[in-house]
Amino acid sequence: MYRVYGDMLSGNCYKVKLILEFLSLPHTWEHVDILAGATRTREFLARNSNGKIPVLQIDDRECLSESNAILNYLAEGSSWLPDSRLHRARVLQWQFFEQYSHEPYIAVARYINRYLGLPEERLAEYYSKQEGGRKALLVMEQQLQESTYLTGEAPTIADISLYAYTHVAHEGGFELADYPALRAWLQRFSELPGYLPMSAELA
Amino acid sequence: MYRVYGDMLSGNCYKVKLILEFLSLPHTWEHVDILAGATRTREFLARNSNGKIPVLQIDDRECLSESNAILNYLAEGSSWLPDSRLHRARVLQWQFFEQYSHEPYIAVARYINRYLGLPEERLAEYYSKQEGGRKALLVMEQQLQESTYLTGEAPTIADISLYAYTHVAHEGGFELADYPALRAWLQRFSELPGYLPMSAELA
Repeated sequence: MYRVYGDMLSGNCYKVKLILEFLSLPHTWEHVDILAGATRTREFLARNSNGKIPVLQIDDRECLSESNAILNYLAEGSSWLPDSRLHRARVLQWQFFEQYSHEPYIAVARYINRYLGLPEERLAEYYSKQEGGRKALLVMEQQLQESTYLTGEAPTIADISLYAYTHVAHEGGFELADYPALRAWLQRFSELPGYLPMSAELA
Repeated sequence: MYRVYGDMLSGNCYKVKLILEFLSLPHTWEHVDILAGATRTREFLARNSNGKIPVLQIDDRECLSESNAILNYLAEGSSWLPDSRLHRARVLQWQFFEQYSHEPYIAVARYINRYLGLPEERLAEYYSKQEGGRKALLVMEQQLQESTYLTGEAPTIADISLYAYTHVAHEGGFELADYPALRAWLQRFSELPGYLPMSAELA
């Protein structure tokens, strides 16, 4: 059975939870408290030398890290990861976009506000994240005006990757009123069978 | 025939050049001058709405962006992208590590120094990149003390992704003396058949 090391309030971890639920894959979830230093222990670093969650423990020997790599691993052979070469590359294009052009703005602004309570000394950084975040949302909006999901008419793991932090973007100060197609996509995604809200595990 | 929009001094573009050379894939290369605003034109944004290079033009209709997505697309079916599910996920793990934990430190420090000439107003940012860059190099060093290449005994596109900016890390102020296995890997990689130095196109 899979074992996940993560924090359900982290969008990167939530991605993994979502694919496990969508595919009904049995698993156990071990909460990791980043702020308490749980990713810096010797034991944790043996699972991921980069000291980040989520980590998927596949078996006694193998652990896999990086949320989007884990999504690709778990979705293999399912409708969430298409077969065609170009479609798979398009999924990856959106996932790399997420990690480089979306997450560092939207997730970091949210972290500073929601986790740290917008402290004075990180206010400048928080504001510096707004422009890049809005640009990323615009890139998504343009695509979602053309297709139902990010890579076509059916949801893939690219949608999971982008949904995770976009649906809580308001917690990072991002107003979604200007992105109607994006808001419709968020709603559509949340109605998919197997969907689980981000905070479900905390209730 | 493939057409690449890129700049050979950009590590992200160099990755694409390397796989094209390793696989002897016919292509044309169109130089894009970022500093002159060539990624902000209407014509370019139609190819990649995120306004970044490299872009691979596959045919009259399809363009693909994100260097690591392009690598996965081009390497499909070759020895550079393994068949096994776990091995493929491991390649992606390193590629997402590269875009999130390596490139934003090492490539950005190099950009500030090499492209912009280390201007006074970006000095603080340049120095702030050093710790994260050294951490990324250490994660690589630990792996390369255990295996010949990042995911095993043969090179994959994960090695291409990490080679691109690591071999010019000194241009971002990173001293490689403390990473002997990494230095041996850089040397080994540069001796692979088909290898092309980063600046070859400029000579």
